Amino acid sequence: MAPRKTSDKLVLGIPKGSLQDSTLDLFARAGYNISVSSRGYFPTIDDEQMSVVMFRAQEMSRYVEDSVLDAGLTGHDWILENGSDVEEIAELVYAKRQMTPVRWVLAVPEESKARKPQDMDGGIVATELVNVTRKYFADKGLKVKVEFSWGATEVKARLVDGIVDVTETGGSLRANKLREIDTLLTSSTRLIANRRAMKTDWKRRKIENIAMLLIGAIGAQGKVGLKMNVPRDALDAVVKILPAEKSPTVSSLADAGWVAVEVILEDRIERELVPQLKRAGATGIITYPLNKVIH
Amino acid sequence: MAPRKTSDKLVLGIPKGSLQDSTLDLFARAGYNISVSSRGYFPTIDDEQMSVVMFRAQEMSRYVEDSVLDAGLTGHDWILENGSDVEEIAELVYAKRQMTPVRWVLAVPEESKARKPQDMDGGIVATELVNVTRKYFADKGLKVKVEFSWGATEVKARLVDGIVDVTETGGSLRANKLREIDTLLTSSTRLIANRRAMKTDWKRRKIENIAMLLIGAIGAQGKVGLKMNVPRDALDAVVKILPAEKSPTVSSLADAGWVAVEVILEDRIERELVPQLKRAGATGIITYPLNKVIH
Amino acid sequence: MAPRKTSDKLVLGIPKGSLQDSTLDLFARAGYNISVSSRGYFPTIDDEQMSVVMFRAQEMSRYVEDSVLDAGLTGHDWILENGSDVEEIAELVYAKRQMTPVRWVLAVPEESKARKPQDMDGGIVATELVNVTRKYFADKGLKVKVEFSWGATEVKARLVDGIVDVTETGGSLRANKLREIDTLLTSSTRLIANRRAMKTDWKRRKIENIAMLLIGAIGAQGKVGLKMNVPRDALDAVVKILPAEKSPTVSSLADAGWVAVEVILEDRIERELVPQLKRAGATGIITYPLNKVIH
Amino acid sequence: MAPRKTSDKLVLGIPKGSLQDSTLDLFARAGYNISVSSRGYFPTIDDEQMSVVMFRAQEMSRYVEDSVLDAGLTGHDWILENGSDVEEIAELVYAKRQMTPVRWVLAVPEESKARKPQDMDGGIVATELVNVTRKYFADKGLKVKVEFSWGATEVKARLVDGIVDVTETGGSLRANKLREIDTLLTSSTRLIANRRAMKTDWKRRKIENIAMLLIGAIGAQGKVGLKMNVPRDALDAVVKILPAEKSPTVSSLADAGWVAVEVILEDRIERELVPQLKRAGATGIITYPLNKVIH
Amino acid sequence: MAPRKTSDKLVLGIPKGSLQDSTLDLFARAGYNISVSSRGYFPTIDDEQMSVVMFRAQEMSRYVEDSVLDAGLTGHDWILENGSDVEEIAELVYAKRQMTPVRWVLAVPEESKARKPQDMDGGIVATELVNVTRKYFADKGLKVKVEFSWGATEVKARLVDGIVDVTETGGSLRANKLREIDTLLTSSTRLIANRRAMKTDWKRRKIENIAMLLIGAIGAQGKVGLKMNVPRDALDAVVKILPAEKSPTVSSLADAGWVAVEVILEDRIERELVPQLKRAGATGIITYPLNKVIH
Amino acid sequence: MAPRKTSDKLVLGIPKGSLQDSTLDLFARAGYNISVSSRGYFPTIDDEQMSVVMFRAQEMSRYVEDSVLDAGLTGHDWILENGSDVEEIAELVYAKRQMTPVRWVLAVPEESKARKPQDMDGGIVATELVNVTRKYFADKGLKVKVEFSWGATEVKARLVDGIVDVTETGGSLRANKLREIDTLLTSSTRLIANRRAMKTDWKRRKIENIAMLLIGAIGAQGKVGLKMNVPRDALDAVVKILPAEKSPTVSSLADAGWVAVEVILEDRIERELVPQLKRAGATGIITYPLNKVIH
Repeated sequence: MAPRKTSDKLVLGIPKGSLQDSTLDLFARAGYNISVSSRGYFPTIDDEQMSVVMFRAQEMSRYVEDSVLDAGLTGHDWILENGSDVEEIAELVYAKRQMTPVRWVLAVPEESKARKPQDMDGGIVATELVNVTRKYFADKGLKVKVEFSWGATEVKARLVDGIVDVTETGGSLRANKLREIDTLLTSSTRLIANRRAMKTDWKRRKIENIAMLLIGAIGAQGKVGLKMNVPRDALDAVVKILPAEKSPTVSSLADAGWVAVEVILEDRIERELVPQLKRAGATGIITYPLNKVIH
Repeated sequence: MAPRKTSDKLVLGIPKGSLQDSTLDLFARAGYNISVSSRGYFPTIDDEQMSVVMFRAQEMSRYVEDSVLDAGLTGHDWILENGSDVEEIAELVYAKRQMTPVRWVLAVPEESKARKPQDMDGGIVATELVNVTRKYFADKGLKVKVEFSWGATEVKARLVDGIVDVTETGGSLRANKLREIDTLLTSSTRLIANRRAMKTDWKRRKIENIAMLLIGAIGAQGKVGLKMNVPRDALDAVVKILPAEKSPTVSSLADAGWVAVEVILEDRIERELVPQLKRAGATGIITYPLNKVIH
Repeated sequence: MAPRKTSDKLVLGIPKGSLQDSTLDLFARAGYNISVSSRGYFPTIDDEQMSVVMFRAQEMSRYVEDSVLDAGLTGHDWILENGSDVEEIAELVYAKRQMTPVRWVLAVPEESKARKPQDMDGGIVATELVNVTRKYFADKGLKVKVEFSWGATEVKARLVDGIVDVTETGGSLRANKLREIDTLLTSSTRLIANRRAMKTDWKRRKIENIAMLLIGAIGAQGKVGLKMNVPRDALDAVVKILPAEKSPTVSSLADAGWVAVEVILEDRIERELVPQLKRAGATGIITYPLNKVIH
Repeated sequence: MAPRKTSDKLVLGIPKGSLQDSTLDLFARAGYNISVSSRGYFPTIDDEQMSVVMFRAQEMSRYVEDSVLDAGLTGHDWILENGSDVEEIAELVYAKRQMTPVRWVLAVPEESKARKPQDMDGGIVATELVNVTRKYFADKGLKVKVEFSWGATEVKARLVDGIVDVTETGGSLRANKLREIDTLLTSSTRLIANRRAMKTDWKRRKIENIAMLLIGAIGAQGKVGLKMNVPRDALDAVVKILPAEKSPTVSSLADAGWVAVEVILEDRIERELVPQLKRAGATGIITYPLNKVIH
Repeated sequence: MAPRKTSDKLVLGIPKGSLQDSTLDLFARAGYNISVSSRGYFPTIDDEQMSVVMFRAQEMSRYVEDSVLDAGLTGHDWILENGSDVEEIAELVYAKRQMTPVRWVLAVPEESKARKPQDMDGGIVATELVNVTRKYFADKGLKVKVEFSWGATEVKARLVDGIVDVTETGGSLRANKLREIDTLLTSSTRLIANRRAMKTDWKRRKIENIAMLLIGAIGAQGKVGLKMNVPRDALDAVVKILPAEKSPTVSSLADAGWVAVEVILEDRIERELVPQLKRAGATGIITYPLNKVIH
Repeated sequence: MAPRKTSDKLVLGIPKGSLQDSTLDLFARAGYNISVSSRGYFPTIDDEQMSVVMFRAQEMSRYVEDSVLDAGLTGHDWILENGSDVEEIAELVYAKRQMTPVRWVLAVPEESKARKPQDMDGGIVATELVNVTRKYFADKGLKVKVEFSWGATEVKARLVDGIVDVTETGGSLRANKLREIDTLLTSSTRLIANRRAMKTDWKRRKIENIAMLLIGAIGAQGKVGLKMNVPRDALDAVVKILPAEKSPTVSSLADAGWVAVEVILEDRIERELVPQLKRAGATGIITYPLNKVIH
């Protein structure tokens, strides 16, 4: 076959499945509108220099390495599992819910006597992450039969000797009455790129651009804009209440006795500050949602 | 049994069921992110001093009174029905749709001859609000058999003599061809607290804090922020158009001939004002959504 | 029968079906809250001078012409098909996705030998747009039997000789392996009004008002507000980066060395500018969502 | 175009929509297995001489007349509406639920003063069955504007002067508080055929065959097989209990004192007879489901 | 009010909710076809002497006692809870799955120290079955606050001291990590009747008739009819394999060397017998489904 | 770890996913009732000697080989892919729809120039069946990079050079505009068993028993029982119409002039015969459904 021809568009892979909706929402706040028709694997994007393909996170890095994709979003875990030779451009960690780092843990039934990885020796362990798990046991000199598990790994824990499964908070393990023995890997979402694509100037700039906009959109998660009117003589008191690292935008008002103060806050902090700000003399306090925050 | 131990967290009950989504959304705009897994009764909240439990609105006040919860959201109707001894912290009335006050009415089929409560004497009335209804008839000296109705009360109106059912606009009664005879009770959503919890300083402060933030978030419902650029000599005319009780924030622009005017408006008013503002000389009019408004 | 009485409210028809959600959302951003109960054809609106009815886009113009409705939203295609004598108040074209103009095309199976409208002569064509299609062929002097197609027209292309079907991007035609031969009509969403209603002063003003607010809400689609702090001596450089036709709002800050700059941008442009603005010295760049933009 | 080529298969149209599942089930009991993939308009059938296409009942007769289909199932109402020249092979009336005859009625709001068709004179009537309705009023010499209603006709009754809508039991009219004024048409499901196809021998035989099997399957609806053991001397008493027109199958048993009696009964009758049969001496009474009953 | 008028139809209550589908299916096999429209509480039945109403099992017995219903299906547990004075006509216990008897148990978290009912003294117990539970503790001389639980009782076990909840197999308790302490009640489905209705001759006969047909339909659950051809000289061997209490129907065949043997078997037994029957010489063994078995 | 203990029950694996419902239905007709709770991987079965676990077909054979399961249902394809050393007990091929044999084919886009496996040399092929595909190309001496495809393989055909995907009728390939180049494998469903389990007497007997009952249930698919009454002098003519290999059961009737004839027929044949039988003099023809047919 002739060598794979480089596309004249930047081909981006986004993950199909549980992360799909939050990924599309993230791109929308970053400024890219991606439309997915039902059952569609080839969404449209409102950027003529790009095309988008959906892959499962598990297989993404293979197709980036093979030049099928120029770049893609996937987890660090699956890059390792596939042993893919790709470039990691940015780590995308949300302050909240989706895309938080996950852990792959060795777990056994609560009632099992196993307490340490060595107790798996001679046994069977089921996992979706076969290669990482085999290397983990081999590095410890343990002889463990690692079987691929096609989903629903947690229910297999009582059929074999242990499982290696992914968890965010440990909640699903507890719900299945499993006990963690060890953590093999902590993994977060990454923007990865094909090494050849990164040597093409316009593609590298575009990928870096996307990285910056995604990080800006992630930075706006869990943040709000807050505006208030403050009497000029209360300004110092108000500013002291605000977090030191935030420099508020203070603008003059027509009424010379007052200034308008505007600041970006994490909503966890904002909910503590509002009562204090009011007491310090601020009025007309409003908060509004943000799309993107770039420092 | 030993006396119930006070939790070191503030335990908050939020209503499961039809109000659930709007409640979660309200808390999000107030600054609290609550995550509910499917079928989950123990959501997580991003505040380490709090834990959240879901109960049906109907049973909430019992568990607040019993110290199972420190505070909770429920309707005034169910507090009365349960005869619960709890503290009402705040009334939470939305300007729109959800959490509007509801009425409990005595209703009969359109074709019934009954015209007043007395016409129920000697008959059977079905309701979810058994105790309030029994007291209502007893206070009038009427002998009515009040049967508990496990949902779908409106369809029972033609099987018994009348029903006492909840309605917002009366629409569902009309749709079932029922006629209202009397209103027993008007009820709105309340933030309630356990009396013992309110005697613990940090819990009382926290509950009051939540009340203020919820009221601020409710205040932003149906409001928008409006910004426009106004020629300095048209400022008076523009300000006169705005509602008298709103003091706009007027800020200087680099171009000395213009000022920026910003104001928070109810959207019902806003849609009337926009054409007038434009005619008065305002340009670059934009409106944007709000999370919270605290006067 | 007595002549149809004019309602004392403005009766507005909105399209039931695929455009329903985006229409309700558009009205919400325009400032009108419309609530639809499930299976409801008579939504409520928070404007006491209006009532709302849902009709299919296909039949809307008939009922506007008949004075059943004072105004309504529908497509230009169905106004033509019904031959309705109504007034077109405004064209409502979204920058994105929904309510983009659509095309009605004559299409045949990819494997068909037909290449031009004349190749349909003596054959059968299925379509939902019967009258427009009959006129199209008659104008060309062709004898074609035009059969009404009750939905799923594309699957009939292989049963008859050709179809006239609606398409946005041509994607569904290609997915069904059909080939376009000709375009009969390009159609977009219109706000239409009954001619008699437009002669009543308050109704005409109200309809024009709705038109302006809908256009403003459409104008905010795909736009964001962008704010940033700029050193006074970098202002010129920053302004030069911004699109020429946009005049940014520049306001003084308390710190005399800095100004605040605010501008409304299309998000397609914004995502290109952010990196450049940052390089030019802007800090604290944030973007936020908009409800409405009125120039 | 060349004249439409006759397919070498019998092309059968079955109705898409509310009757679809009961139709497929009917064919299955008749002996034909039709598989529909989701969104599929071209089901497969396990008979190599046939192919199946799905159409809406409303358009079926047009495509049968046009030779697109050789035969199809649709309602008598839509044959009339379309004025199609097709052959009606069989009436398919189920003893129960689906495919019962329906009525098209002129209906008005309960509160309307209209009492007879003449009260519509000069008014507007909405209906899906436009041609039949126009003819109905014209035959009475009435001038009524008949507007096509694209579904949900019952909700239009209060917007225009009356509707012509389909009903089975009148229940949906009552639920919408409408009153019937007149019945225009009673309609049942028909198997129809193209006149040209009926002149091809093998097609005509096949269509007649299908008609017989469908009628046999319909005949088994709501019937059960009943078997019992009866002492020889109680046989007369048992047979007298059975409906006169049913001749039971009486077979000898090894035990000469007993016979086995088997009979096909409507389940409405069966539930009355079982207690009587038991009292008359029958034992081991069982009933079993049937696929097809051919007299 | 005038005394409640007896309906001229037999009014039957069937349970809305989890048992609904299996109840409708049971009636269908008994010979009664009940049609439920979506959201319908007034199904239709193909018996002109009956009308059907849906109630929750929890409230059924109240409305039977009040003469709103003549008869109904509900659980023994709810009859006790409501203290209803009604007549129990028949116990309806399925051999399989639905309508198996259920148990109401006192349960605590696995980690609780409570081991016996006495350990609840002075505590709070949540349950849907408030009255039965209160009586249970009172009979033991224990002071327990019994709170009504509006669904999802199992999740409250960790919020209060214990729960009284319903379980079939104990599986849901184990899944929630709860431990059973005691069984308060075992309950099965009952056909109940109003005492006054049972004094009306035709109603009593009809209710008894329904009871017999339902029991016949339940008897056919998990049973199949089995037919086979047996050489006359192998008949004894074959009959010996069959369960002693089943008398097979042996009928003569045209071929004098063979007989046809037919028998009704539970499918649990049938699957053991088939291999043995084949070995004993039976051929052409078939099994078929049954609707009803009346001994 | 100690050697894996043999369960005292027969542990059977049934496939989770698309075949699940048809498998449960098959077991039900075979006489085994398996209940699956939602999200349940451990169904219950009404046989105390058995327990059931759900696995994906893809991983089934691994767990049978590892003695986690004694037996299981899976495809021949996945046994090969996993290279599992298990015993194949029975091939389970349905006459209709589900569980028909499938083919794994090498396919390319219609527009591709590739015509034979050799044209993949040096390219990339995506598939779920990695090992079988690698062996296939290696056996031909071709160098092809085979990448694992995590579902939706058909959409990858245009991203890489070709795919190896599963198909029943080729329909999904044509729908995706792919062209078959070669067939790698034809595969059907198998009942497989662990070699050690087959050496335990009671387990082997039980597994063979299950095989026989499943085959009997499959044999009844697409068959019906047909009964008719035939005049004794028409018997020969009727029997001649019936398929030669079927020996009908002819039984005497009380009326000596008639016999009852019963026969099991494939429904494809039955629908052809019924008209002929009627013409030959048969009356009272009925057909009824079957659970199981064992020759």
